[in-house]
Amino acid sequence: MKLLVGHIDGKSAVYAVKGEAAKNLTRLMPEVGGDLMQLIANPALLAGLSFDGIAGEEIAVSQITPALPVANPGKIICLGLNYIDHIKEGGYEVPDYPALFMRSLDSLMPAGAPMVRPSCSEKLDYEVELMLIVGKGGRHIAEQEALGHVFGYTVFNDGSVRDYQRKTHQWTPGKNFDQTGAVGPFVVTPDELPEGATGLKIESRVGDEILQSASTSDMMWSVARTISTISEYTTLRAGDLIAMGTPPGVGHAKKPPRWLRPGEVVEAEVEGIGICYSPVVDEKDLSTDGRAS
Amino acid sequence: MKLLVGHIDGKSAVYAVKGEAAKNLTRLMPEVGGDLMQLIANPALLAGLSFDGIAGEEIAVSQITPALPVANPGKIICLGLNYIDHIKEGGYEVPDYPALFMRSLDSLMPAGAPMVRPSCSEKLDYEVELMLIVGKGGRHIAEQEALGHVFGYTVFNDGSVRDYQRKTHQWTPGKNFDQTGAVGPFVVTPDELPEGATGLKIESRVGDEILQSASTSDMMWSVARTISTISEYTTLRAGDLIAMGTPPGVGHAKKPPRWLRPGEVVEAEVEGIGICYSPVVDEKDLSTDGRAS
Repeated sequence: MKLLVGHIDGKSAVYAVKGEAAKNLTRLMPEVGGDLMQLIANPALLAGLSFDGIAGEEIAVSQITPALPVANPGKIICLGLNYIDHIKEGGYEVPDYPALFMRSLDSLMPAGAPMVRPSCSEKLDYEVELMLIVGKGGRHIAEQEALGHVFGYTVFNDGSVRDYQRKTHQWTPGKNFDQTGAVGPFVVTPDELPEGATGLKIESRVGDEILQSASTSDMMWSVARTISTISEYTTLRAGDLIAMGTPPGVGHAKKPPRWLRPGEVVEAEVEGIGICYSPVVDEKDLSTDGRAS
Repeated sequence: MKLLVGHIDGKSAVYAVKGEAAKNLTRLMPEVGGDLMQLIANPALLAGLSFDGIAGEEIAVSQITPALPVANPGKIICLGLNYIDHIKEGGYEVPDYPALFMRSLDSLMPAGAPMVRPSCSEKLDYEVELMLIVGKGGRHIAEQEALGHVFGYTVFNDGSVRDYQRKTHQWTPGKNFDQTGAVGPFVVTPDELPEGATGLKIESRVGDEILQSASTSDMMWSVARTISTISEYTTLRAGDLIAMGTPPGVGHAKKPPRWLRPGEVVEAEVEGIGICYSPVVDEKDLSTDGRAS
């Protein structure tokens, strides 16, 4: 099933998606709620469902304003270096353990919402990534069991403020500027993708300019190995988000650097899942409450 | 006011504390709720209150099982290197920006609860720290306004699994093992401490063995400058936790290294706030749900 969390009228709902059409699952089954958490807790709600078998009117996906697939994820864990050519372009050694950092919820926004270039830096960079949403939680998850803990896959644009990322060896500030990490809009359940979401084209673009283009098969740490590795130290929980790292072609490694500029729309795409698009907006053009004006 | 969140009968409440005595504020004012979030949102609830002026019976602090002061903090941000002698003992360069990382809620436990040494490592280390709890949130907080955004101060023991901290340059795994970061139990409002909580003795011990002993005046980044620096990239929110880094004397820098061992009780103390104590327990001696058996 392909799912989309969002709203038309301000009230968030879960939609089933086929091509450009969507049907409101929450209206059909109110127990589904306003984000994916109820479906994650009760996967039986989706069992046997197909888009064509869902009653209710079809609406256009384009009418729906995306929201975060999980409104309040407990943990947002990101792999920093998972594509070998991206490691080389950043000047890092190839590690034997994933470089892991965390993002806060304040740093995320749904697909379609502004990606904010902060006033303090012009070095806002894109990073297209595969993101998984944890279904069944657990600790000490064996690699061979790990894919059973994935609820679904989505697209992430790990927007990074490069000079703040490298202020020290810890990347936290540059990875946590408010409204820089775009999630969604579509979540695809594992049954509709290759096992472990491998072999998918992964690309970022601004207009006709292709910025990154690779395959998820180039990931050094597979989804299963990543889940197993992370769950060695922390209990994964339903709704946790794990971003799988970005392929080469990021802006800071291009010569000259290719920073995102206000007025551009950056698209991050993973084959079979969809396009996560973000209009780039200057912080000074936001309203005073920190949201887009 | 000195506050303590905890329970006697399973139902968490906020207590006012004086010496070894406590009074249940939540019973007196149900709107206070089961953690500090309501007091943070409505500081007027504390205005004019003194321990002696609070009606109700006195109970012994020792009867109360501590809980986290904020049950579900939005962000837990930690400074890695804030005492110059600790930077040198770790072999790091003195930075011109704080090394910042984040912890997840799963990595925290209240004072008194087991600090868990994981099965995969014997390198569990202590780090006594001053921790602040954000009161009024905000973004782009000026340094001279920053202390007005502190609700109170508590003690943190930033339990670290050193080999996992240094698996790569990103410290996340070693700083995020389940149940390794002890918080509390006491929260002291700023009016009862020196401005910015400077000049306080900060110490960690196991029994008579003094492990770390310094003063919060040795911090390179003050509380005010830290709040200002962090709020440049992220919106601070009520209940967010900021750990201010640890002084020298950590176990991995001692010769030979001094790791925490199951059966020990580690104490972290900040003068004027209190002692955060943690019995060290081996992961294999926990019950299967990941809680202490």
